[in-house]
Amino acid sequence: MKVTFQIEGGTPVIMECNAGDNLLEVARRANVAIDAPCSGNGSCGKCRVQLVEGELESLQSRHLTDEEYAAGWRLSCSSKVMGDCTVFVPDIASAYQSRMKTADLSSPQEVAIFQECQEQLHASGIQFENPFRAVQLKLPVPSLEDTMPDNERLTRALQDALNVEQVEIPFTVMVRLAHVLRQEEFAVCVKGMLIPQGFRCMEICPYEDTALVGCAIDIGTTTVTMVMADLANGTILAKGSSGNGQIRYGADVINRIIEQGRPGGRKKLQDAIIKETLTPIMASLCKSAGISARSILRLSVGANTTMNHLFVGVDAASVRMEPYVPSFFSWEGLLAGDLKLPANPLAPVIIAPNIGSYVGGDITAGTLASGIWDKDEMSLFIDLGTNGEIVFGNRDFLMSCACSAGPAFEGGDISCGMRATDGAVEACVIDGETMEPALSIVGEADQRPVGICGSGIIDIISELFRTGIINAKGLFVREGKRVKRDDHGMARYVLAWPEESETEREISINEVDIDNFIRAKGAIFSAIDTLLKSVDMSVDMIDRVYVAGGIGSGINMKNAVNIGMFPDVDLEKFHYIGNSSLSGAYAMVMSDPATEKTTQVAANMTYLELSTYPGYMDSFVAACFLPHTDARLFPNSSRS
Amino acid sequence: MKVTFQIEGGTPVIMECNAGDNLLEVARRANVAIDAPCSGNGSCGKCRVQLVEGELESLQSRHLTDEEYAAGWRLSCSSKVMGDCTVFVPDIASAYQSRMKTADLSSPQEVAIFQECQEQLHASGIQFENPFRAVQLKLPVPSLEDTMPDNERLTRALQDALNVEQVEIPFTVMVRLAHVLRQEEFAVCVKGMLIPQGFRCMEICPYEDTALVGCAIDIGTTTVTMVMADLANGTILAKGSSGNGQIRYGADVINRIIEQGRPGGRKKLQDAIIKETLTPIMASLCKSAGISARSILRLSVGANTTMNHLFVGVDAASVRMEPYVPSFFSWEGLLAGDLKLPANPLAPVIIAPNIGSYVGGDITAGTLASGIWDKDEMSLFIDLGTNGEIVFGNRDFLMSCACSAGPAFEGGDISCGMRATDGAVEACVIDGETMEPALSIVGEADQRPVGICGSGIIDIISELFRTGIINAKGLFVREGKRVKRDDHGMARYVLAWPEESETEREISINEVDIDNFIRAKGAIFSAIDTLLKSVDMSVDMIDRVYVAGGIGSGINMKNAVNIGMFPDVDLEKFHYIGNSSLSGAYAMVMSDPATEKTTQVAANMTYLELSTYPGYMDSFVAACFLPHTDARLFPNSSRS
Repeated sequence: MKVTFQIEGGTPVIMECNAGDNLLEVARRANVAIDAPCSGNGSCGKCRVQLVEGELESLQSRHLTDEEYAAGWRLSCSSKVMGDCTVFVPDIASAYQSRMKTADLSSPQEVAIFQECQEQLHASGIQFENPFRAVQLKLPVPSLEDTMPDNERLTRALQDALNVEQVEIPFTVMVRLAHVLRQEEFAVCVKGMLIPQGFRCMEICPYEDTALVGCAIDIGTTTVTMVMADLANGTILAKGSSGNGQIRYGADVINRIIEQGRPGGRKKLQDAIIKETLTPIMASLCKSAGISARSILRLSVGANTTMNHLFVGVDAASVRMEPYVPSFFSWEGLLAGDLKLPANPLAPVIIAPNIGSYVGGDITAGTLASGIWDKDEMSLFIDLGTNGEIVFGNRDFLMSCACSAGPAFEGGDISCGMRATDGAVEACVIDGETMEPALSIVGEADQRPVGICGSGIIDIISELFRTGIINAKGLFVREGKRVKRDDHGMARYVLAWPEESETEREISINEVDIDNFIRAKGAIFSAIDTLLKSVDMSVDMIDRVYVAGGIGSGINMKNAVNIGMFPDVDLEKFHYIGNSSLSGAYAMVMSDPATEKTTQVAANMTYLELSTYPGYMDSFVAACFLPHTDARLFPNSSRS
Repeated sequence: MKVTFQIEGGTPVIMECNAGDNLLEVARRANVAIDAPCSGNGSCGKCRVQLVEGELESLQSRHLTDEEYAAGWRLSCSSKVMGDCTVFVPDIASAYQSRMKTADLSSPQEVAIFQECQEQLHASGIQFENPFRAVQLKLPVPSLEDTMPDNERLTRALQDALNVEQVEIPFTVMVRLAHVLRQEEFAVCVKGMLIPQGFRCMEICPYEDTALVGCAIDIGTTTVTMVMADLANGTILAKGSSGNGQIRYGADVINRIIEQGRPGGRKKLQDAIIKETLTPIMASLCKSAGISARSILRLSVGANTTMNHLFVGVDAASVRMEPYVPSFFSWEGLLAGDLKLPANPLAPVIIAPNIGSYVGGDITAGTLASGIWDKDEMSLFIDLGTNGEIVFGNRDFLMSCACSAGPAFEGGDISCGMRATDGAVEACVIDGETMEPALSIVGEADQRPVGICGSGIIDIISELFRTGIINAKGLFVREGKRVKRDDHGMARYVLAWPEESETEREISINEVDIDNFIRAKGAIFSAIDTLLKSVDMSVDMIDRVYVAGGIGSGINMKNAVNIGMFPDVDLEKFHYIGNSSLSGAYAMVMSDPATEKTTQVAANMTYLELSTYPGYMDSFVAACFLPHTDARLFPNSSRS
C-alpha cells in the first residue's frame, strides 16, 4: 500500500509501505520532514497531520481536541497505516525547515555584533594569520631540451616562489596536473598551505583563480549556521543557515544518541547532517559567492560533543552512558574528504575541542569569542540552546557546566510552542488592569500569530507573574476573560482567539506549559548557582553576563531576571553576543592563533558534571519557583 | 538486438546492442575477453570467433582461409552485428586470461631465483628494515575516576609502548576506535608505522591479530604478478598472477595511451587494471594467506612509465608525444585509499621511479634486483617484454634505453603465435637431414600443439637458419615435405599438420612471421649495440648479461645468440634472473634501504632516447639479418 503526503506549500510525495507501518516512520523513509521533537513517543504533540482520505489506526491524544480528531487530525507518531491513504502535512509541522530568524547573521545588527566580536579578538592579540597561499606561476613550457616531468616542474617553481624546501603534491592534485597544465598552457595558480616541511598543494587552477576560502560552521542541535570568508583578508563571502536535518530523529541529543545506536543509525545521522543539511547550504553559499567547492581550503566546526560525534560518524553511545567517556575531545588531522564534504578534499576540518560529554566545541569556540579568557573581570557566559551551557571565570580560571533545559526555549514541551519562525509570538506585554496582551509577531506587519517561541514564553510568563495573574508556583490566581479553565480545572491564558490566529486554533499558555517552562529556567539558574558555589562565589561577584545563542537576541533580559532565569544583576552587565559558536569558529578558520588559543582555553577549563554534583538537585528544586524560593536572590523581581 | 557469446569452457554471456555495432566493441562492453593485440585494426587476426547462428556483416581477411570463412569463422574486430546472433569464443581467443607459465614464482626454480636475488641484495648491504609495527595493548578501562576520551587513552598507551612523542590517529582508525575498544574490552593490537614525528596508527584490531603484510606488484603490459609477504620477517604468504585486463584495449602501450585519451578512457583503463585485475588477485591472495585486506600496510609497484600513469589515472598522452614529458617520474605520498585498492586505505603505495617515457619503474626496480649497481664488472641487463629495455653499466655509471620489440615475443605478429600457455610450442630442434622438428609443448605430457610462443619462435628460427632451410634474410632456400608455398609463392615451414594439432589447423611459420620476428630481434640487438657505442664500448667488454622477464626463462640463450638477438659473448656470462621487476618491488616493499637505493639508482641512470639518437636506425637496419649484416659480430653463430 502507499501513503501520499500532501505537503503544505510543497509537491506531494508518495511512499510505499506495509500495513501496520508507523506513519511517522513512513514519512521519515520518504524524507518528508515532520517535526517530532519528542522523537515519536507521543508526548509533544507536534507531529500532527490531517487524514484526507484512506485509513489510519490512531491513538487518541491529549494533544488533539474531539473536534480536531473528528476533522481528521492525527499524531503521525501514534498512527498506523492500514490502507492506501493521503495525509496533509501542515507547514507548522515542518517548521524546522524554515530559516531561523536569529543568530545567522541575517540582520545588520547581528553582523555588527559578529564584527565587534572579531575586533575584540584582535584587540586581545589574536592576529588573523593562516598558512593558506595562492601562488600564481608561469612555468617554462617543456621542450626536447627540457623534459622534466610535470610534478618536478611544478615543485621547482613552487620552491623558488615560496622559498621552501619540500613541496607535497597529493593525489587529488597529481591526477589533474597533466591536464590542467596543458589546458592552461603552463600558466596556473596553485592553492595550498604552508606546512612545517614546506608547502602542500591542494588545488591547481587557472592562473586568475586565486580564491582562498574558509568555511565556519556552527552545528547546533536545532539549527546549522555557516559563513564562508576569504582566507586572505577575512571578508565574508556568503552566509546561510537551515535546520539540522537530524531533528527528525529527535529534538535533543539523547534521542539522537539512542537513534544512532540502532543498526545503520550512525550513517543515517551522519547523512542527515552532512548530506542533507551541510551539503545543500555549502552548495548554495558557493554559488552565491561565485566560488568552486574546491576553493574551500579549511573548515571549522563549533558543535556540542554529541553533534561532533555524529558529524564525524563516531559512535556517541558512551557520551551518555556512565562513565561518560566520549571517543574524543579534540581531533587532529580530520580532512573534508574524510567526510565527503563538498570542499577541497584536503581541506583540514578544525573541530573546536570538547571538554566533557555535555560541554562541547560550541562552548569552547564561544568562550574564545566571548573574550572572557582575556579579562580580569569575573564573567558569566551563558549559551542558550536545546541545552544550556554555562562558563564562569576570567583570565585565571574557567569553570563550565551544562544543564538540560529541554526544548522549551525552542517551543517544545509547550502546547502552542514553536520555533522563532514566521507567526511566532516573540514578545508580549500584558496590561495589568485589563489583562489584555500586546503581542509582537515574527514576520510581515500583517502576520497573524501561529504559536509562541522561546522569547515570547519568557515575556508571557514574566508578564503573567508581574501582573499577578499567576503565582510563584505558576498557578493562575486571577480570573478574567482571557483566563479559561478546562473540564479538569486546568487554567490557561488565551493570547489569541481562534479567529485571530493564522491556524484558526486558539493560542494560549496553560499551567502545564508554565510548569514545564519553570523547570527549564530553573535548570539554567540552578546551574549558574551551583557553578558559582563550586568556586565559593556568589551572584554579586559577577561583573559581566554574556548571553549567546539563537534564542538570545530576542530575550528581554529584564523579564528573564524577573522570572528567575538569569541572576539578578544590574541589567547593564548583560551583553548579547549572538551566535558565539559561529563567531569562534570563524576566528578559528581564519586564524591559527585563534585555534591555538581555543585549545588552550579548553585545556584550562574545568568541567563540572552537574548530574553527580552534590547540592545541584536541591538548587534545582529551589529554583523551580517564580522567581525563586529564596526571593532575596531576586530583589528586583517585580510583581504587582 | 542481442549477441550471445558462447565462451569455451565458460558460461554464456548475452549483451544488448544496436544494428551495425562492432562485434569486438560489444564483447568489450559485455566484459567478454577477446584477445585483440592490435587493438582491433584487423592486422593481427587474433580475435577470431565462430558465428553459430544469426547475422554478422564481416570483412574477409587474410587471416581466414576460405574454408574457415565458410565454417563461420570471423574476425570480431571486422564484424558488424546485423541481427540477433550467437558466436562461439574459443579459449585461444581469451588466452590472456590463462595464467602465464613463467616468472610468477609458480615453480620451485623461479622461487629459488627470486630468493637468490634477495640474498644478493642482503650481501650488497640492503637490510630489510621497515617502519611497520604491530603494538599489542591492554588499556586501562574507563571509570568515573578515569574519564579520558578514547583517542587520548590510546595515544598515551602508544607513547609509552613505543617511546614516541606524537601519535597520529587518522580518520579511518578514529571512526572505528570507540567500537573496537569496547568490543575487545580495551585489549587491542594497533598496527601502524613509525614516522619522523612519532607513530601513525593505521588499523586497530583484536589483540591477537598482529599480521603486518606488504604487497609487491609487477604490472606488466601483458601480465600482472604479485607477492604478499610478512613485513616483519619477509616470509612469502601468497603469490599469484593474471593477465593485465587492459589488454583488450591494445596489446602495446601506444594503443592504450590512445584509448585512455578518448572520453572516459582514463577511468576505463584504470578500472581495467585496478578493479578488474589487481582487486581479484589481491582478494584471492588475502584469502589464501588468511589475512584481511586492512592488514596490507604497504604496497610497491614495478611498472613501465605508461602502466604507472594508467594505474594512478593520470593522463599518459604526453608519454608518447614530443617532447615526451610524462606527468611524473617518481611519486611521493600515494596511498592505497587514493586508488581504492583493497588494502589498508592508509597504506603507502611505493611506485618504483620511472626515468624516461619508455624506461620505467619495472626497470629501475629490476636494476636494483640485478645488483649491477654494486659491481665493478660491466653488466648488461636486458628485460624482455612487450617492450625491450636495456641497462648497461656498473657501480660507476648506468645507461639505459628502450626499444619497441613489438608483440612478437609474446606471440603477436606471428600467424600461429600465442602466449606461453598450454599448447604453446616452447622449444624446437630440427633435424638437419630430414628437416623434421622435435617440439616441446607447454602443458601435460599428451598436450597437442596449439601455436608457438616467443621462446619457441627463437628456437624455430635459429634451427631453420642453422639447418640452412632459411637464409640470412629469413627466406626459404631448401625444399622439402615440410616447406610449403601458397599461391603467391610465400613459403612456410609446417611444425604440425592439421591432424596433429589441438585446433585441427596447421601450425606453421611463414616468411612474413620470420620477417616480423627478425625486426623484433633486430630492435633488441641494435638497442644493445647503440647503448654500448654511446659510451664508446663494445660487446667484448661485457662481463655479464642478466636476462629478465616473463619470456626469459624459457629462452635458449645459444639460439638467441645464434640468430643475433643477444650479443655473441661466452654463454656462461648469461644469467636468467626471472621477474626482476617483481624481485625489486618485493625488496622495496620490505625494506626502506632498498627503496632509497632504487631512488638513487634511478637518479644516477642516464636515459638514451633511441628514436632521436643518431645512428640507431642504421644499427637497426644492419641487425635485421640472421645473425647480422656484420657476421664478425657473431663468430659463434652456427649455420650449416
